[in-house]
Amino acid sequence: MITVLAGGIGAAKFLEGLAAILPPEQITVIVNTGDDAEFHGLHVSPDIDTIMYTLAGVVNRETGWGIAGDTFQALEALRRLGAETWFQLGDQDLATHLHRTRRLRQGAPLGDVISELCQRYGVRCRILPMSNDPAPTRLRTSAGELSFQEYFVTLRQQPEVLEVDLSAAEDSQPAPGVIEAIINAQGVIVAPSNPMISIGPILAVPGIRDALRNTPAPVAAISPIIGGKALKGPADRMLQSLGLGASAVSVAELYRDFLDVFVLDDQDTALQPEVERNGMKVIVTQTIMSSAHAKQSLARTMIEFIQVMR
Amino acid sequence: MITVLAGGIGAAKFLEGLAAILPPEQITVIVNTGDDAEFHGLHVSPDIDTIMYTLAGVVNRETGWGIAGDTFQALEALRRLGAETWFQLGDQDLATHLHRTRRLRQGAPLGDVISELCQRYGVRCRILPMSNDPAPTRLRTSAGELSFQEYFVTLRQQPEVLEVDLSAAEDSQPAPGVIEAIINAQGVIVAPSNPMISIGPILAVPGIRDALRNTPAPVAAISPIIGGKALKGPADRMLQSLGLGASAVSVAELYRDFLDVFVLDDQDTALQPEVERNGMKVIVTQTIMSSAHAKQSLARTMIEFIQVMR
Repeated sequence: MITVLAGGIGAAKFLEGLAAILPPEQITVIVNTGDDAEFHGLHVSPDIDTIMYTLAGVVNRETGWGIAGDTFQALEALRRLGAETWFQLGDQDLATHLHRTRRLRQGAPLGDVISELCQRYGVRCRILPMSNDPAPTRLRTSAGELSFQEYFVTLRQQPEVLEVDLSAAEDSQPAPGVIEAIINAQGVIVAPSNPMISIGPILAVPGIRDALRNTPAPVAAISPIIGGKALKGPADRMLQSLGLGASAVSVAELYRDFLDVFVLDDQDTALQPEVERNGMKVIVTQTIMSSAHAKQSLARTMIEFIQVMR
Repeated sequence: MITVLAGGIGAAKFLEGLAAILPPEQITVIVNTGDDAEFHGLHVSPDIDTIMYTLAGVVNRETGWGIAGDTFQALEALRRLGAETWFQLGDQDLATHLHRTRRLRQGAPLGDVISELCQRYGVRCRILPMSNDPAPTRLRTSAGELSFQEYFVTLRQQPEVLEVDLSAAEDSQPAPGVIEAIINAQGVIVAPSNPMISIGPILAVPGIRDALRNTPAPVAAISPIIGGKALKGPADRMLQSLGLGASAVSVAELYRDFLDVFVLDDQDTALQPEVERNGMKVIVTQTIMSSAHAKQSLARTMIEFIQVMR
């Protein structure tokens, strides 16, 4: 059993590779819900849906999120009704949010709803939200205090992030199954997601970080920073503006207390000694997942190393 | 100022004619909300939307409801997620329901929400729900107790209706403006809608029937039954199964306590004496609204008669 901590698009790519080389039933994914938000009265879970749609094989490959070939008739009509429509919601995608919102209003826990959706979408990996409780990420930025989606979508990640406020997670509990999935795993992998706004919120749920420290399983993380740059998204600029330095080394530092293995891209071979000085093993490999082959190859490297470590 | 009591499709046709010959601002429509229902967690007001879309010029002319050219991607996706999708909701139409549901959850009264939607849709007639309170019509039928939409859509009006239960309206109040629109009108017109399940629910809201009895304005109704048949829908069969007889005369009977004028179709000239014996004036005219000309012609006849009556 392999457990993966995941944000959105980068994690989804890695999981595609993993699900191609392992029976999907052996994979548990713990997903960030810190950027869940309400749009038009509907509960939207962007990272969960990105993972779910990707593993279901219906994701829009061009954007990395949403459903391939989806239309935007409802959103366009909402715009005409005067609604704010900066968050893209396709018509088929809306069905997911309608279903989720209706079930949550009926009192179903988010984890149960995700499980229902995954069954309908034919996703055989187990996808768990980090928590059934709301734990919205807030950002203090050069443009003021912002919700995650305001920063990420409306302002296109342009403001400098000065502080990531995860305090809303303080009163949350890990979703049922999350702690067990970490403790009982044969290996735990932190996907190449943004350490501050994708993985950080998961780690902020009380009990999860302790479980990562205490699990007998090896814990490995794949760097989302390559050659000082994020392949996608604002992770590099956020590391800078938070005073951490835009380097894979900074990511390893953030995970230092629970990490056994850190995976550097080939381009960052020179950083290996610095990471090792922090007491972690280092794998240096090709981490850019530009093809199905590359995704599976990275997944295979991870699994082989986990088997050696045990 | 003319006030019209309205159900869905038949009323919408008449209102199109009326809005073409009068300044729309002089028209108030009081609409049945007894068949409002929740689908996929969204509040749907079928009759209000039919009136609104028709007056906005966006209605689907083939069905008489919904938006012309609308797509059904979200509904199809909901079906794949296992939802019951017998109630047709187009993608653009969904935007209306999303907006309404969100505003209602924020605490806005239904009447305010309808007013906002009408403004966005460019509808200049004033559309009022009969009540801001829920007052769902229930039906006792040969297939058991049914909600309105179960009877109307799921079972395609096949069961015999044995009783129309409007008791849910007992605790409702007329929406703000409804009583005033009846009392202060220059004329009140009951549209050619089903008297039991479209007009009946409006009349069941405490205060509305009294206002119709007491208004100084002439009150006229157009028969929805022509030659013993309903042009559309189950009104004729319902009149039969409720033991009233499928005749325009039965409709006039139902309105007898507040009606001054009853409009019979040319085909029902023979019924004029029978209706007049109940103390009403009778207009006999062409009431089938098969063209824009026919709609306007009927509307003009009504307005002229109202002017004479005053």
